[in-house]
Amino acid sequence: MFLSELSKFATSPIREEDETASDLISRGNKVIKLNTGDPAIYLKTPEYILNAYIDALKANRTFYSDSRGVSVLREAVAKRYKRNYGISVDPDKVIVTQGLSEALYFLNTALIDKGDEAVLIRPYYPAYIPYLEVLGGKATLAEYDEDRNWEIDLDKLEKTAKSAKGAKYMLITTPNNPTGGVLQRGTLEGIVEIAKNYDIFLVSDEIYDELVYEKKFVSLSEVAKGIPHIVMNGASKNFDATGFRIGYVVFPNEDKKSEELLRKIIDLAKMRLSANTPAQYALAEGLDNEKEHERSVAQLREEIRGRVIFVTDQINKSEFMHAVKPQGAFYVFPKVNFEKLKLKDDKEFVRKLLLEEFVQVTRGSGFGAPNHIRVVALPSKDVLNEAINKIEKFCKKYSK
Amino acid sequence: MFLSELSKFATSPIREEDETASDLISRGNKVIKLNTGDPAIYLKTPEYILNAYIDALKANRTFYSDSRGVSVLREAVAKRYKRNYGISVDPDKVIVTQGLSEALYFLNTALIDKGDEAVLIRPYYPAYIPYLEVLGGKATLAEYDEDRNWEIDLDKLEKTAKSAKGAKYMLITTPNNPTGGVLQRGTLEGIVEIAKNYDIFLVSDEIYDELVYEKKFVSLSEVAKGIPHIVMNGASKNFDATGFRIGYVVFPNEDKKSEELLRKIIDLAKMRLSANTPAQYALAEGLDNEKEHERSVAQLREEIRGRVIFVTDQINKSEFMHAVKPQGAFYVFPKVNFEKLKLKDDKEFVRKLLLEEFVQVTRGSGFGAPNHIRVVALPSKDVLNEAINKIEKFCKKYSK
Repeated sequence: MFLSELSKFATSPIREEDETASDLISRGNKVIKLNTGDPAIYLKTPEYILNAYIDALKANRTFYSDSRGVSVLREAVAKRYKRNYGISVDPDKVIVTQGLSEALYFLNTALIDKGDEAVLIRPYYPAYIPYLEVLGGKATLAEYDEDRNWEIDLDKLEKTAKSAKGAKYMLITTPNNPTGGVLQRGTLEGIVEIAKNYDIFLVSDEIYDELVYEKKFVSLSEVAKGIPHIVMNGASKNFDATGFRIGYVVFPNEDKKSEELLRKIIDLAKMRLSANTPAQYALAEGLDNEKEHERSVAQLREEIRGRVIFVTDQINKSEFMHAVKPQGAFYVFPKVNFEKLKLKDDKEFVRKLLLEEFVQVTRGSGFGAPNHIRVVALPSKDVLNEAINKIEKFCKKYSK
Repeated sequence: MFLSELSKFATSPIREEDETASDLISRGNKVIKLNTGDPAIYLKTPEYILNAYIDALKANRTFYSDSRGVSVLREAVAKRYKRNYGISVDPDKVIVTQGLSEALYFLNTALIDKGDEAVLIRPYYPAYIPYLEVLGGKATLAEYDEDRNWEIDLDKLEKTAKSAKGAKYMLITTPNNPTGGVLQRGTLEGIVEIAKNYDIFLVSDEIYDELVYEKKFVSLSEVAKGIPHIVMNGASKNFDATGFRIGYVVFPNEDKKSEELLRKIIDLAKMRLSANTPAQYALAEGLDNEKEHERSVAQLREEIRGRVIFVTDQINKSEFMHAVKPQGAFYVFPKVNFEKLKLKDDKEFVRKLLLEEFVQVTRGSGFGAPNHIRVVALPSKDVLNEAINKIEKFCKKYSK
């Protein structure tokens, strides 16, 4: 066999229908794409950040950077954690990555040999799985509870942690993609306790942490003092700059595991030399210019909140679907009542919806949550309204 | 053990002394860094490319791109291969990567399970090894022959290919990093014959293909028609834009292996969503604006040629070193005569040279060629002259 056995795990549910959608478009159809969580298509990246990017280019900052990231960005990240969460982070313990996906690649390559386990909680961001599995790793799954606003049932999580003895890490996502759930402080404290008791390294993906509109966001780093953990974040969502491909990993704690992982990630970062250099200067300005950032992120948050609420309300008028109201991020993740539909599952739902109504959403099974669909609530309300009407029409067509 | 067993293979000889160098600098020393092949530090990225980058930012092209890369760039790459090498490439068979290092990551993840082999030829670019080995792959080594202008002894290569039955790929580098050697057409034809006979997929890293000053460059794609192969290239060297982190892979041939690898690399590319978007538009303009490119690459080539010849000549005046004259790229790779020195090996040489003379070069053993050092011939001649004088002084100090 030419391809590696493990490469069969390389999958991407969010983009799996992209070729079909492109095909439909090239044949003259208008496709409403609600599959990619990319705010920069609909809402412009703040101008002060673009200006900083342009300044970096004009200053000829087009060379490789330090493999860990330019120091001005690492310092800006450290200041952010102090300012937002009261956490002291050494700028030398911040690693800049090519998007959060590279952080996942680094994390798994540093920790996972064939057969190693990691605890993931479903619904999960789809890429968590292939980055683990192409290395031969295995996911042990816990669950966010849909009936409790997508919070975590800590008793169940403890059982999972117990069963996953020796798991290399446990990865949480708050705010969550795809559910929009935001973990409460108490839940985070419970997770920390479990991680401590079962000696599992904690990883928190907090890339939507400033896009919370329904309650106060709490970072894992605020409650995990003294236990080994990292936090991942980046430019894509809070700074509306997906195409920059700049993420980062923060190591707030002083312990042997954190130290080992930090050193190994630096080794891996050196292999690929650096992330895009001028984009790093742009994000540094994005972080440091507090006044401009507060203004633009507040505006972004309000825009998104309006669209998310609109989609949730429209969807919840349907007899075929119900969505828990999101608290952050920009997704709506309704459960579809397949008992009322002549459709086998969410995969068939999503494929037929694309082919027949030209609306592209993502199947819940891609997030580990069958019978759901993920709708990206980022286009204008007119477009969102049109899409939801088409989804409703589609459901009626397949109604039992 | 917390870290994975395989992650011990994550190494980076070129940057391994970076912390020591930074330390020396922070203590007030002037360090001459001749370890990183980064032209953009010394010679500015062409203005027309920066302008295209700025235009893309002003046009708000800051969203995720197609995972394969923006179509205008894939089309520009296809046109380049037609123009420069007479090769027909389908733009849908061009994949844009985050630097050539991501192409190496994709290649190895797509093909390598634990225990799989790949044929590399030493001296090799150091990152080839860890991207293979962190997946449990093993390198079977052939050799470029220093006594024959760093050409390949095809009889020896055939023996290696024979011994590496079932090897997933054979990777050649022309122009070569670290030697500056450029493979002749006849050698490439011999390599193609061997790959065909032993059914080994060919990979050619040609990232310096326009920086050849001593003879005509021949691309593998020109002589490999009909056999499975890929060519890797990018913005970093020919366009003097290392910090963009834009590479690409071209699949010129129609065959089952190429098709399988292409599809798998698209799967892997989707997992990380996209490369930096505005930088892709910048490289598209870099490729398409032939007149500006010809002017700037000719200037770049002349500058580099002058510096490389200067370094080679200076080094060859020394009784302690001898370098084969490079034909392309911007490295000089002298053999050090350790019989004349009270130094154990190239590692000790490089480390002491940095600590005592504040000149940072890279050890040959990092490229699979002990007893050599790699000197980056990119700074101004004054700086290069100072560095070589220091190296000579250092050798005299340790002379037997």
